Amino acid sequence: MNELAKGVGAGAFTRRHLLERLAAMGGSAMLLAGMDALGFGIGSAMAAPPKLEGKPKKNKVLVLGAGNAGLAAAYELTQAGYQVTVVEARSFAGGRAQTARKGFRLTELGGTEQVCDYDEGLYLNHGPWRIPYHHHSTLHYTKKFGVQLELFNNDNDASFIYFEKGKGPLAGKPIRKREIVADTLGYSSEILAKLSRQNALNTQLSDADREQLIEFLVHFGALDKKDLNYKGVAGRGFVVDPGAGTNPGPGTPTTPYKFADVLNSGLWHMVQGISEWDQQRTMFQPYNGMEQIPKAIAKNLPDGMIKFSTEVQQIRQTPKGVTAMVNGPAGAETLTADWMICTIPLSVLKEIDNGLSQPFKDAMAKCAYAPVGKIGLQMKRRFWEEDHSIYGGHVFCDNPDINNIALPSTGWQSQKGVLLGYYNFGPNAAKVSAKSPADRATMAVDYGQKVFPAYKDSYETSFSVAWHRVKYNLGGWGMWSDEARATAYPVLTEPDGRIYLAGEHLSYIGGWQAGAFESAWQQVERLHARAMKG
Amino acid sequence: MNELAKGVGAGAFTRRHLLERLAAMGGSAMLLAGMDALGFGIGSAMAAPPKLEGKPKKNKVLVLGAGNAGLAAAYELTQAGYQVTVVEARSFAGGRAQTARKGFRLTELGGTEQVCDYDEGLYLNHGPWRIPYHHHSTLHYTKKFGVQLELFNNDNDASFIYFEKGKGPLAGKPIRKREIVADTLGYSSEILAKLSRQNALNTQLSDADREQLIEFLVHFGALDKKDLNYKGVAGRGFVVDPGAGTNPGPGTPTTPYKFADVLNSGLWHMVQGISEWDQQRTMFQPYNGMEQIPKAIAKNLPDGMIKFSTEVQQIRQTPKGVTAMVNGPAGAETLTADWMICTIPLSVLKEIDNGLSQPFKDAMAKCAYAPVGKIGLQMKRRFWEEDHSIYGGHVFCDNPDINNIALPSTGWQSQKGVLLGYYNFGPNAAKVSAKSPADRATMAVDYGQKVFPAYKDSYETSFSVAWHRVKYNLGGWGMWSDEARATAYPVLTEPDGRIYLAGEHLSYIGGWQAGAFESAWQQVERLHARAMKG
Repeated sequence: MNELAKGVGAGAFTRRHLLERLAAMGGSAMLLAGMDALGFGIGSAMAAPPKLEGKPKKNKVLVLGAGNAGLAAAYELTQAGYQVTVVEARSFAGGRAQTARKGFRLTELGGTEQVCDYDEGLYLNHGPWRIPYHHHSTLHYTKKFGVQLELFNNDNDASFIYFEKGKGPLAGKPIRKREIVADTLGYSSEILAKLSRQNALNTQLSDADREQLIEFLVHFGALDKKDLNYKGVAGRGFVVDPGAGTNPGPGTPTTPYKFADVLNSGLWHMVQGISEWDQQRTMFQPYNGMEQIPKAIAKNLPDGMIKFSTEVQQIRQTPKGVTAMVNGPAGAETLTADWMICTIPLSVLKEIDNGLSQPFKDAMAKCAYAPVGKIGLQMKRRFWEEDHSIYGGHVFCDNPDINNIALPSTGWQSQKGVLLGYYNFGPNAAKVSAKSPADRATMAVDYGQKVFPAYKDSYETSFSVAWHRVKYNLGGWGMWSDEARATAYPVLTEPDGRIYLAGEHLSYIGGWQAGAFESAWQQVERLHARAMKG
Repeated sequence: MNELAKGVGAGAFTRRHLLERLAAMGGSAMLLAGMDALGFGIGSAMAAPPKLEGKPKKNKVLVLGAGNAGLAAAYELTQAGYQVTVVEARSFAGGRAQTARKGFRLTELGGTEQVCDYDEGLYLNHGPWRIPYHHHSTLHYTKKFGVQLELFNNDNDASFIYFEKGKGPLAGKPIRKREIVADTLGYSSEILAKLSRQNALNTQLSDADREQLIEFLVHFGALDKKDLNYKGVAGRGFVVDPGAGTNPGPGTPTTPYKFADVLNSGLWHMVQGISEWDQQRTMFQPYNGMEQIPKAIAKNLPDGMIKFSTEVQQIRQTPKGVTAMVNGPAGAETLTADWMICTIPLSVLKEIDNGLSQPFKDAMAKCAYAPVGKIGLQMKRRFWEEDHSIYGGHVFCDNPDINNIALPSTGWQSQKGVLLGYYNFGPNAAKVSAKSPADRATMAVDYGQKVFPAYKDSYETSFSVAWHRVKYNLGGWGMWSDEARATAYPVLTEPDGRIYLAGEHLSYIGGWQAGAFESAWQQVERLHARAMKG
């Protein structure tokens, strides 16, 4: 009897058992192969919403929250013939997928109201910020609803890195990333190439492979073919760019830094072989603000389906249905339905009288929410473009109150721009957000001045958010410890009676819109399968 | 007497002599330092057009060619009060900065007429293709005249590389660039990190620096911190992407290739430490076609300044002025002026009865022009986006008839698209261009089919150009051998009497629009300085 068949008897041999056995034997790869073979259709599950075929027997669904998860659930269910009601506490759809522009208002817990006063046409996406090319679900909706995309410049060779905490002559100076990339990789390649030529490699590479390796390193690190020394490379930049005629003619190349100086500066932390999966090129953003995505989905829901400015006060269920006591513009009312999809962030949901089971309550308690802060600074002149030829990208800093300054990937060469003055997390976000919006701006502007001489003089106005202090979010996104991911998370991906939770917090794409969309798709599919049974 | 002062006597000590002496002593760096000290203002010379102040005594200028060089010269001179006439052989401005769209016509030498029949809204920039962020002169005009820019995705981690000529299991298969980057750099880092830990480095790095190097390599190559092995990395991609819930949950990572297989495949040729100077991020293109740039400049010239469809047949000069015998819609005429700026490509100019001096003729003969071919294939479906999640960038191939397939950086998620099916140079361009346009398309489509299964089925129509067979260009761009650059090129950057040559061929930014603009700026400045003297 082979490993797979062990303990499999009549009746016990369900698909689930088989999959558990496969997972125990071969890990996730075998599990997935098995799921694929059994027709779970994983390979394509993420690229498109589920097909909800047939007429469900009980078709009334209450969706709590009109963020991306709630909107996607409402849209897909409506298309499948469900009667959907969406309850949204805010006066607009989108959840965290917000865009601050002139007149946008925000009052943080314990704070005074901020009214965004950017110039017309300028904005800040203070929630989700970008869309990787492999976030098929997000891109599904932009395509379906014609949300115009533009490229987001996520990685800019020409941008600065600004590290204060390193040692040596490169500390505390804005340094072009291209210089650090070129020098770090040039010198590393030089060392390895020379060792290879000396036949010092203690590896299984054949002589021919070793020669290929040297050839690669010469190419990769721009080494001198003969002596294998790194002597700089045009790609690190010029003192005077190549130009016309004989003045300046071929230009004046820059001189590499010393390797020890680069190593001691710590700037190499910003040099990576391959970008993280969710930071890779190509990256997109919707033209004219992230809110265009939820706006487009909401526009394709039947009029009046979303009850705006309506807070959920109590959730209950019986074996036959669900109820939500809500309070909106028309006063308190109790909504009933057969099913519920609840996309309220766990941080908020656990504070509501939610009637969920104890295992659910225990599991929810194990999901922490990230303190996250962002500030958008309106600059009267795009000095980063005009003075430094930096078009988009990030200035990474080693001060965690700032973390990075992100330059806008839109409005190229126009007069003004809103840049992201900081993007902080955790304790630093908590610390910075304790300041008033004006003091946050002062902190951000003072810091930026160290990188860009024209920063302070160009600053006009700001808008900031501390997501952990926003009443309907209480954090930027859900965070799972390894232990909680293994124990609590799977509990919440199952339904609690007739209530299904959905949102980025129930995905491995946390903090991204795709997590919200795919979670919604998944729960909608399960709900439908059950509703078809009656 | 120091080296600098040698041979410098009264009258002989001109600025030029000083600069020659500096160059001989210290090369271009010292030359440039000297130029800067003497007020040549090199550092900023490239960022903006010259300031042409004062009222010139002789102010009539004939500009030959309404490509970017001619347009910029005409615009700047007009602003400075010159009376300018521009002669252009084509019926439109822009020179090589063309955009083929529905109805665009091209007849190559010895060929039949092609009429572009792309769908409305689709186009191919069959001349210049992109704008690096440091091409200040090109960006000067886009900003000045409000030409809307969009990012050009020049380097796409998700795109394929397709090499047929390598060895081993990766040959002849489309391979994602991100996989090759991750594996090549992972394994190289592993080898170097292990050697470093074994203290095998024969370098001057201190122990502390060596530890920093190891730390860098672990970070850079995604190595296991303990055993320093490269075991793959999420950035190389997933078999099943991370998703929502527990299905697929964290996703299934891909398995790295063997290092020897990567080395033998030759695919590492596409992995570079820092991109070439003119290939770096950020890269731009004008929204809706490269022709928007010359169109915008031409629109800002006085009506009627450009004589279109007018060929130059003879050029002459006397000590007092210049003449050009031209033939246009109104028949033959002789135009006279005080000065001439001739932007006609040398390949064409040398075939005209140009009356230039023998040194000029000799120098022109030393500039070769590049055979260059491009083809734009209209696809009825953007299968590269829909089936492969490749949004823009290049598929590099090791077949020099193709060289690369470039995917459009515009019209994201729309239905159809025009991709660049090949971009060949030199003998391969000559070979391919000998085919009929239909046969070129067949060759390109057959090749692309090896990379993309939906290529052939999606193909609708093509438009191709072989610049060496285009009457008014006879090549893609000027090419200088080292010898010719040292001897012939400097001759042509000086005026020949009252005639100034300008164009990308008189720059170190050959083949780029910036070369044309900066060359024009340079010659206009010199002409003006002389015209001010009378």
